[in-house]
Amino acid sequence: MKYVSLFRQIPDYPKEGILFEDITTYWKDPEALAYSIKEIAKNFENKGITKVIGLEARGFVIAAPVAIALNAGFIPIRKPGKLPAEKISRSYDLEYGQSTLEMHKDAIEAGDKVLICDDILATGGTLSAAESMILELGGEIVGIAIVSELGFLKGRDKLNTKNIYALYQVQ
Amino acid sequence: MKYVSLFRQIPDYPKEGILFEDITTYWKDPEALAYSIKEIAKNFENKGITKVIGLEARGFVIAAPVAIALNAGFIPIRKPGKLPAEKISRSYDLEYGQSTLEMHKDAIEAGDKVLICDDILATGGTLSAAESMILELGGEIVGIAIVSELGFLKGRDKLNTKNIYALYQVQ
Repeated sequence: MKYVSLFRQIPDYPKEGILFEDITTYWKDPEALAYSIKEIAKNFENKGITKVIGLEARGFVIAAPVAIALNAGFIPIRKPGKLPAEKISRSYDLEYGQSTLEMHKDAIEAGDKVLICDDILATGGTLSAAESMILELGGEIVGIAIVSELGFLKGRDKLNTKNIYALYQVQ
Repeated sequence: MKYVSLFRQIPDYPKEGILFEDITTYWKDPEALAYSIKEIAKNFENKGITKVIGLEARGFVIAAPVAIALNAGFIPIRKPGKLPAEKISRSYDLEYGQSTLEMHKDAIEAGDKVLICDDILATGGTLSAAESMILELGGEIVGIAIVSELGFLKGRDKLNTKNIYALYQVQ
């Protein structure tokens, strides 16, 4: 697992008992950053993807360059109150607490082929909320791409999408 | 100004009297997205930039692909409570209200040549806070890149950086 040592583990963050995977030390490395985007894009090329969705905020770091690599548009899914136009929303449980995500109603159109990107797959709450909103708007979810999957949290089991690509596995 | 018509103007958002420039409709277009990154990267190539800084959250969408194009690392400057390791912070005034930004202490090293990216230059409050933190950590700010500058707010006057590149001007 090339460059995996660049992740930084922060004990007891954001609360006791959680070992937080800090990706900022990975992104600080030019080669690691470029490698992760190249690998994700390679895995989803030639699938006709028209929109790449990034989940606020770290998902934007993956989704924007992957969108460019795949010649697709970039679409943000955001925290409440951040999107200015007409939108839909989903509430969901996360590893620590509860939250809501929003998406512009006109962000995707029926028939759009969509790739969802985030940095980490933990419990799958945010990605599941994203799946639900994209399907409501008529998008076809081709796959989900994450940099690192915390397999022990079994987030994958919560998702409908079968094509889930994780560059790294944390057990 | 190629693709400028893709921005969406939202009246009275986030409060009465403000005409909000919505960039999501611009980013939805694959060609516009790729064009903006290419133009920004072209303007800052061959300057030895080692770190590209993105301001949460929309700045990440610019900074990550620009970092890859320039073979530099990506560094996030974030809202309070989002960065897990040791950090510095700055409070600042913005167009509507007040806020604080944080940055990891080890995000950059003395001598790093830094490009700061955001989507919109409005009053310059966030970019000024970013400048201040980067200088505290010993970084050399080579330039600031934004997609769109709201010139009438004169945010540029609040910044120390002279090399400010804006792809679009809104008067």
